[in-house]
Amino acid sequence: MNGMRVFADPRSVAVVGASADRAKWGYWLARGAIKGAHRREVHLVGRQGAVVEGVRCLSSLHDLPSAPDLVALCVPPGAVPGVVEQALGMGARGFVGITAGLDLALGEGAERALAQRIAAAGARLLGPNCLGLYDAATELHLAWGSFTSGSLAIVSQSGQLGLALGTLAADAGLGVSRFVSLGNQADVTAAEALADLAGHDRTRAVALYAEDFGDGRALVETFAALREAGKPVIVLTVGGGEASRAAARSHTGALTSAMEVVDAACEAGGAIRVASPGRLVDLAQALAAPAPPRGRRVAVVSDGGGQGALAADLAEAEGLRVPPFSAGLAARLAALLPPAAATANPVDLAGAGERDMTSYARVVEVIAGSGEADAVLLTGYFGAWGGDNPALDRTEVSVAGRIAEVARGMAVHVDSMGRGTEALAALRECGVPVYDRVDGAAWALGRAAALPPARRPCPPLRPLAPSPPAQGYWAARELLAGYGVPFPPGRLAEEGVEGLRAPYVLKADWLEHKSEAGGVVVGLPDEAALGRARREMARRLGPGRYVVEEMDTRDHVVEILVGGRRDPAFGPVVVAGFGGTEVELWRDTVTALAPVTTRAATEMLRGLRCHRLLTGWRAGPALAVGALAEVIVAVSRLLSERPDVAEVEVNPVRVGVEGVLAVDALVGYAGPSGLT
Amino acid sequence: MNGMRVFADPRSVAVVGASADRAKWGYWLARGAIKGAHRREVHLVGRQGAVVEGVRCLSSLHDLPSAPDLVALCVPPGAVPGVVEQALGMGARGFVGITAGLDLALGEGAERALAQRIAAAGARLLGPNCLGLYDAATELHLAWGSFTSGSLAIVSQSGQLGLALGTLAADAGLGVSRFVSLGNQADVTAAEALADLAGHDRTRAVALYAEDFGDGRALVETFAALREAGKPVIVLTVGGGEASRAAARSHTGALTSAMEVVDAACEAGGAIRVASPGRLVDLAQALAAPAPPRGRRVAVVSDGGGQGALAADLAEAEGLRVPPFSAGLAARLAALLPPAAATANPVDLAGAGERDMTSYARVVEVIAGSGEADAVLLTGYFGAWGGDNPALDRTEVSVAGRIAEVARGMAVHVDSMGRGTEALAALRECGVPVYDRVDGAAWALGRAAALPPARRPCPPLRPLAPSPPAQGYWAARELLAGYGVPFPPGRLAEEGVEGLRAPYVLKADWLEHKSEAGGVVVGLPDEAALGRARREMARRLGPGRYVVEEMDTRDHVVEILVGGRRDPAFGPVVVAGFGGTEVELWRDTVTALAPVTTRAATEMLRGLRCHRLLTGWRAGPALAVGALAEVIVAVSRLLSERPDVAEVEVNPVRVGVEGVLAVDALVGYAGPSGLT
Repeated sequence: MNGMRVFADPRSVAVVGASADRAKWGYWLARGAIKGAHRREVHLVGRQGAVVEGVRCLSSLHDLPSAPDLVALCVPPGAVPGVVEQALGMGARGFVGITAGLDLALGEGAERALAQRIAAAGARLLGPNCLGLYDAATELHLAWGSFTSGSLAIVSQSGQLGLALGTLAADAGLGVSRFVSLGNQADVTAAEALADLAGHDRTRAVALYAEDFGDGRALVETFAALREAGKPVIVLTVGGGEASRAAARSHTGALTSAMEVVDAACEAGGAIRVASPGRLVDLAQALAAPAPPRGRRVAVVSDGGGQGALAADLAEAEGLRVPPFSAGLAARLAALLPPAAATANPVDLAGAGERDMTSYARVVEVIAGSGEADAVLLTGYFGAWGGDNPALDRTEVSVAGRIAEVARGMAVHVDSMGRGTEALAALRECGVPVYDRVDGAAWALGRAAALPPARRPCPPLRPLAPSPPAQGYWAARELLAGYGVPFPPGRLAEEGVEGLRAPYVLKADWLEHKSEAGGVVVGLPDEAALGRARREMARRLGPGRYVVEEMDTRDHVVEILVGGRRDPAFGPVVVAGFGGTEVELWRDTVTALAPVTTRAATEMLRGLRCHRLLTGWRAGPALAVGALAEVIVAVSRLLSERPDVAEVEVNPVRVGVEGVLAVDALVGYAGPSGLT
Repeated sequence: MNGMRVFADPRSVAVVGASADRAKWGYWLARGAIKGAHRREVHLVGRQGAVVEGVRCLSSLHDLPSAPDLVALCVPPGAVPGVVEQALGMGARGFVGITAGLDLALGEGAERALAQRIAAAGARLLGPNCLGLYDAATELHLAWGSFTSGSLAIVSQSGQLGLALGTLAADAGLGVSRFVSLGNQADVTAAEALADLAGHDRTRAVALYAEDFGDGRALVETFAALREAGKPVIVLTVGGGEASRAAARSHTGALTSAMEVVDAACEAGGAIRVASPGRLVDLAQALAAPAPPRGRRVAVVSDGGGQGALAADLAEAEGLRVPPFSAGLAARLAALLPPAAATANPVDLAGAGERDMTSYARVVEVIAGSGEADAVLLTGYFGAWGGDNPALDRTEVSVAGRIAEVARGMAVHVDSMGRGTEALAALRECGVPVYDRVDGAAWALGRAAALPPARRPCPPLRPLAPSPPAQGYWAARELLAGYGVPFPPGRLAEEGVEGLRAPYVLKADWLEHKSEAGGVVVGLPDEAALGRARREMARRLGPGRYVVEEMDTRDHVVEILVGGRRDPAFGPVVVAGFGGTEVELWRDTVTALAPVTTRAATEMLRGLRCHRLLTGWRAGPALAVGALAEVIVAVSRLLSERPDVAEVEVNPVRVGVEGVLAVDALVGYAGPSGLT
């Protein structure tokens, strides 16, 4: 990491623009910096004679007894270049740029020039226009606000949203290991700030808020490296609203929105995208816990039947299973519990916890020892007893300790009616996820149990030279056929039908949405009918090129869409989905970074809701899934090798028992005449 | 309400089984009762000489100076009948039965006998096996735990889940107006406890947790009455997991699970079902607010671009709209804000709030005055300033007051990074919903904006006498045709094809899933082909009745399922959905209580995802939605008039441009030979 170390544990810090006014940034940065004064030299530079939290400000960097290692810039924009020059001259290695509006104050390009100047001196700049930096391990606090020390690293393109994540992490008892507000990323990028976390011991999960993704493929590599370092990345972004689905010429464009591509990138990097800050923190709790769920089998333990049933319902809704226990396990639990207890999963303690609080721990221990569950979800009153009755506090804390011991080897999540009790604090201290809403617990367990390892995309293919854009169906057919996509036998209409078997299909070559425009006629039984259809179509649509193909008359056919496009950040992506004319109705698609292997393509198909149609739906035959996967591979290769191709759509690919046939296709090219 | 008044504001209360031991129910009930001692006589009956919270226990009810109006029963089950007799003799009018296990201790039927004895004396019994009763208006606290006074009434079949809802309501600053733990409902039912809330002034929203629904139609009527009294009901129930979808013979059975029927019942009663306790409280906040959202247009106001964009995305994901403001409104906002501010929606204050906190209020006021939004979602730092800087506390509270003033006439929801500040308390005091997670705010706004008024189901039809169950397709066809469902012209195969036009369809009358079983052949061009097909089918399937119909050869046809069944609690329901063979794949259905009007049936169709296929999909023609609605009406009438019919399924109904044709149907009868 080029010079990033100065942001982790600088030898000395100077806050320039320090202030005694709590309404000013200079106050908060100074106040935070002082907290680390027992570990490093901290200097404040500000108004002559000002005193911040007992520390007197110096009036210039020159008054410092030694060079500042890291300099926080809280001065007005006009003063920034001077301070930076001075600090670089003294040997500063890093800057935290809080100041905003450099270009506005100093003219377009000022920010960029500043970043270049700093880089040329071998130093680094965070921001500018950022909210600062916090590191729990080194007690470095150069940011607005306060942080609870913990295990979640936050890297955020919006400083305030980063702070909001920090607040939610504190609510959950998770806390923050490092906070990096990226600001304008004039120098330090999101990928660099993330990569720097791989060796950060306190960090057990990483939150990234990003509005754009720069070099997306590098980011995916960083996600994967962090995942492999045991610090999974959870991504929050914006632009999922309807307004952000740009009007698109093809289905593929409409179906692979920016958000679908981010999801594909996350999957490749072993990261996961969430929709809200709250869900980010729910999941971070699950991922930062000592033991993640080993699979989808959840044991639900409650001290009330209603809460247990509800937790089981919610767990199942999140894709988890709540399997009935074996008779043996149920009997072992029954031996611990009163006759009214439910022991098959969900387990209902039926008052046992009230009579003997160790029942909670004993039940969890027996389940953990059974091998019949991958995770335990404990829901109900545990964690609330001490709040009602201080006499129960110590017992509850000791039971919490036993549960936390189990949680070292097995995922144990607790949803509690308690608030702020010692027992809950003890659980959290050991990293046991504690929720105050059971839906959060079930949701997080479901996501954590389903999180696949990083599956880095295939290495990019060597780009081929662009060919002249070939417009129309026939050209698309030729291009795709060259990659191995099978089409029905066909010819240009002017060449006649020699060698083609009836019935025929006639297509207007140049139309993109042929069926809506009346540019396709199927089921033509012979050459005479074909001729009539062609004359009729030419009368309606005017002159142009026509294509004749053999009609695919097979039974048991499912229509699938295969396509792809080039994303500005993440490069080529490939999409497969329920095809035909109802594509946009069901929106059943899956997207992956291209190119993909046959295995990855097969995996993509398994992710479709309509996958069941391919594998023998309602006593029907299994269809040619292997051949379909090869079409996905082919389209992904085409997009990867041909940077001049902006978009491909093959829809439908007709998947039958014996094989597949592509019967319509569209290729769009980049550039003024193309799609993007 | 027969005698329910004693549970709202009894003249005097006696807790029998009072105890000084905090681990005992008798302690909590006594402690709670004493809190109301300034309003009513409170007597404790317990161990000789015991003192609970400074009040000395009497050793018997007979020692009371006057008759107890309401008696809380916390004694062991064996002592219950004696205490009840004694209290009834003294003139008690109500009992709160905390004690559990009467039948276990006193023999099967003891609980029922007790309830009958109490009823015979003209008194009422809540429970037994309940967690008690709380009423904020009358300071009646006869329950385990503590409550924060507020505006949510909780009626719960699980006492502990009710308490959990109370805790979440306190977290949200919403609080509880009344808590009723129903226990075993030996006398007082959920419907009675709910109905009693119609005149309960403090209650602004109602939470119902129920595991079964008794007389479901009466409950729907109660929901509707509460809705009309301005106290909407939010329902939480269990049984939504996969395990609870009973194996069903028809699509209809699988598609109208208990949960779909509860949803239909809620819709009829103007109530709404939620999936979790947390979401219940989120929505309760929105519904209890002074002004509900008037529609789906949300103005998002934030002091950070990231948070505003995120809130807008989440709002759109919940079915709300975040429409750009008019140029005039944007200009009025721009005049209040710095140049960097976004003023078109979402609004980003861009530092204005930091410089002048009244900016928050002024922006909200301008938006409220514009008529361009139905609700405001304010997200970000507002509510946190006072936490950072006590000097800002008073300003923030006064701004909160201005925002609360706006919220009297327009829905204003606040998602705040603050925790426990005076400003947030001030907002909550005025009923302004405050969330600590923005997804909760967006979700609740979305649900509240979409909540339709109660649409009571049509009155039930007069039941007709059952006819002998008629098995097979031909009988189903005849029955449904009698209700006006159109089928293609057809005859029993042995009668020949006179009057029928080719091509023909041949069907094995007795098979329920004809296509999978090879019991249907379509496209038979003439009588000879029909004869061959019939001989071939008879060879495969054996002897039986065959039906010949004209084949529906129309273009532009969409296949829809119409069906229904009889629910044990809610009676006949009707379902419509995407039909054909992919019914279970897409699960696109809507369910309503039967019978329905044409208008309601048309509304049902609008709720389907596949509705777009019916109204001119991809430049295609509009289909006969009116005729389809009449099929729904017909099926709903059949189920309503014929209690002997357990289940009906017409699938597919082929909907074309000119009309509809039902081409398969199944009718199942109740009883040993039927479906249920």
